[in-house]
Amino acid sequence: MDVHTHFQMELEELKKNLLKMAAWVEEAISQAVQSLVKRDSELAKKTFAGENRINRLEIEIDEMCLKLLALRQPMAADLRFITAAMKIITDLERIGDQAVNIAERAISLNEEPQLKPYIDIPRMAEIAQSMVKGVLDAFVNRDSKLARLVCERDDLVDGLNDQVFRELLTYMISDPKTITRAVHLMIVCRCLERIADHATNIAEDVIFMVDALVIKHHADIKGDE
Amino acid sequence: MDVHTHFQMELEELKKNLLKMAAWVEEAISQAVQSLVKRDSELAKKTFAGENRINRLEIEIDEMCLKLLALRQPMAADLRFITAAMKIITDLERIGDQAVNIAERAISLNEEPQLKPYIDIPRMAEIAQSMVKGVLDAFVNRDSKLARLVCERDDLVDGLNDQVFRELLTYMISDPKTITRAVHLMIVCRCLERIADHATNIAEDVIFMVDALVIKHHADIKGDE
Repeated sequence: MDVHTHFQMELEELKKNLLKMAAWVEEAISQAVQSLVKRDSELAKKTFAGENRINRLEIEIDEMCLKLLALRQPMAADLRFITAAMKIITDLERIGDQAVNIAERAISLNEEPQLKPYIDIPRMAEIAQSMVKGVLDAFVNRDSKLARLVCERDDLVDGLNDQVFRELLTYMISDPKTITRAVHLMIVCRCLERIADHATNIAEDVIFMVDALVIKHHADIKGDE
Repeated sequence: MDVHTHFQMELEELKKNLLKMAAWVEEAISQAVQSLVKRDSELAKKTFAGENRINRLEIEIDEMCLKLLALRQPMAADLRFITAAMKIITDLERIGDQAVNIAERAISLNEEPQLKPYIDIPRMAEIAQSMVKGVLDAFVNRDSKLARLVCERDDLVDGLNDQVFRELLTYMISDPKTITRAVHLMIVCRCLERIADHATNIAEDVIFMVDALVIKHHADIKGDE
């Protein structure tokens, strides 16, 4: 096998690992939010174990990228792909951290009576998860059109976040006994919003990589909030 | 001049640009918070112009790093330094975005009577700024001890944030007319907290680079919130 073929196989391996990491991160978001919705604190604890697995994979992929840079000395498109991968795993790992934050809040919330039906929060989580999945597919397939669709979904999450925030404020103002629970829920929403932000950051990296166009500094796209 | 010396000069140039970007970002934080404290919306607008300059420098540094990777094929420590630089500028750029968010809120807040004296917010901003400065010094000098000190300061910011948050809740509950202003101020605090988080992320990258020790996944250090 020549060096070129070997390098292509290594790139395929890298893509496989990135998709694996993204799938684990998606699972973490789902577990954390389901632990809240189903009031299942045991499920929340699974998120903590999942985080260790995600962190180990991040380090593995990071090392893999460094080795590819050092040993294969890739040019142009491949170079950009590998450095983008190194940025993307940082965002994925931070999404995993946000899932853990949600799980922690779920455990606290599950100890008290439920403040309100959870409808918008699972909806936000679903969108955020689909953004993570979409943007990683966009990355490995170098598909900037798909990445742009992910950026657009960020507004949906922000809109739902604002809506829940206002609703929770109403609870807090009308009954101070609800404040602790309302604040926990506000933080859950904030975590979901930040997950969507990270997915948007990744989408911007993908678009930059594919189109060599710095969309993130364009006025027509909402900035990293 | 031999290739080696030339490469060292390029690395020096890279460090100089990183410190310049950090200084501009610090200035943006300071301008945004001062525009709030001094109720000076003209100053807030300077932050918007500053952001463009920061964004352009990010792209320039990113290109510089890619060229160094492609043309100089650095090994081991230099390779890690350059890939870390690429991650760090992403965090710096996002800190700049947060400064813009603060400036936007300042403009809205300056149009209404001041809700409360601003004491903790400038204090948070000062710490956040010192974290940005400290962590970039740590990076260019490969000083993991200094980077660790920066991580510790994050708790101060989080503590102040919790304190202001509770205080603002009290305002909101006792007088619903204060809600809009209190929410703006909560978001300003959240932006400062996220600036401190980004500085902490950079500190973790520096420690990882220097000590090849993955502090960010250690249980004794607070995760990326």
